[in-house]
Amino acid sequence: MNTQSQIDAATIRADIRAGAHTGHTAGLAPGKLQCNLAILPERYALDFLRFCQRNPKPCPVVGVSETGDPMMPTLGRNIDIRTDVPKYRVFRDGGLFSEVTDISDLWSDDLVTVALGCSFTFENALQRYGIPVRHLDDNVLVPMFRTNIPLVPAGPFHGHMVVTMRPIPEAMVSRAHEISGRYPQAHGAPIATGDPAALGIQDLGQPDYGDPVEVRDGEVPVYWACGVTPQNVLLDAQLPICITHSPGHMLISDVAEDAETPIYHP
Amino acid sequence: MNTQSQIDAATIRADIRAGAHTGHTAGLAPGKLQCNLAILPERYALDFLRFCQRNPKPCPVVGVSETGDPMMPTLGRNIDIRTDVPKYRVFRDGGLFSEVTDISDLWSDDLVTVALGCSFTFENALQRYGIPVRHLDDNVLVPMFRTNIPLVPAGPFHGHMVVTMRPIPEAMVSRAHEISGRYPQAHGAPIATGDPAALGIQDLGQPDYGDPVEVRDGEVPVYWACGVTPQNVLLDAQLPICITHSPGHMLISDVAEDAETPIYHP
Repeated sequence: MNTQSQIDAATIRADIRAGAHTGHTAGLAPGKLQCNLAILPERYALDFLRFCQRNPKPCPVVGVSETGDPMMPTLGRNIDIRTDVPKYRVFRDGGLFSEVTDISDLWSDDLVTVALGCSFTFENALQRYGIPVRHLDDNVLVPMFRTNIPLVPAGPFHGHMVVTMRPIPEAMVSRAHEISGRYPQAHGAPIATGDPAALGIQDLGQPDYGDPVEVRDGEVPVYWACGVTPQNVLLDAQLPICITHSPGHMLISDVAEDAETPIYHP
Repeated sequence: MNTQSQIDAATIRADIRAGAHTGHTAGLAPGKLQCNLAILPERYALDFLRFCQRNPKPCPVVGVSETGDPMMPTLGRNIDIRTDVPKYRVFRDGGLFSEVTDISDLWSDDLVTVALGCSFTFENALQRYGIPVRHLDDNVLVPMFRTNIPLVPAGPFHGHMVVTMRPIPEAMVSRAHEISGRYPQAHGAPIATGDPAALGIQDLGQPDYGDPVEVRDGEVPVYWACGVTPQNVLLDAQLPICITHSPGHMLISDVAEDAETPIYHP
């Protein structure tokens, strides 16, 4: 059966470019790195890269474009960042301006694209090793929480870490730690386990973003750094313009999830 | 016995700052990340960070300073990059200008420091696991070779990879691969094994830099990406000014070699 998850990354990107796929990308092109996006004016790019280098768990950089060039040759063949993501969010001066499926008319010569790894990668790996991922089994969004964990600042970029929470059976926690730790380009190992209050989270039943999931007897809440972190930080920095993907609507790259080095298709 | 290798990083940096230690740093402050340095004008920093992101094996970024700020708070307490490295090389317009032990008089408001991981980290790990490291046993410099492996370009930065070679007993090669692979911030796993001609290396007995070492019966030449790569690339880019450490004379950080996240001492 030729299910959509078996269609290759290039074909899915072509569908997205043609406007034939505007939905989320979870489960598509398994084995390929999917990416969070931050598109911003060049004059902020050096500080943003410094910020990502200083906060690698929430902000694992997997690709950086040339200034003004919409192509991303280190992430795959013929990737045009203006059209090849199913849905974008456009922010102006720190406010949400619009949600669109194409940013060609917003592109300008001073924009730089930064691609960041996303949690789809280690979730696939957890499932492959038989570790249940509750929000996937429940078919809801992963619950996300603002924490009291300060980020290392750089220029206008600062704030606190956002985390995702996945309930893991107690006996599988160290295995989940080990497996996700193999993917430093996708948030890596958890940043904490157990008591939500230690992270400044008041109620696991009321996530700041996404959907709540049940933590059952014998399960431990496990927290990973989340790609919403840089989105919030960019928003707070009130850049004149900043474009991100819409949550769950990722750039699908040609890079293998477990690649140690990038690719290059000039 | 209080040998020098047991003295902590901060004490060694204080000695270096005072001019009491101008030698190499191999074996000092074991367990702490040592760093290659590239100090360059801000207008080249974004391209250089792009270059490093695209070539993470030879150029693993472990710290980036604020523009014009000589302190490196993400690498340790009270690190002043102008004085805390035993020896520096100053390049102007692509030529070696001078070798000095202090760059205070060269510092300016537009300089950015990029710190890159170095092979000392995985060499220590190999030895801890009983894998011999020939050049350390022979007390010579590691042999380094220019290769035909192209780097992914960014702005003015381009060229070919330089590798180090260590002869490893055949039965230990996969173990050496696994151990060094745990340190992506220090060049990670080898980039190749075996036939030097496949990398464009003509004679293992005649390294381009460093000293030759014997490859004995039953041993395989194993190649790792080398921190000389970015030095050559910077030299070829003919920047008006660029400052690096002198080979073997590294910045000793307070960061644990196996740290997954940076530190911060504002």
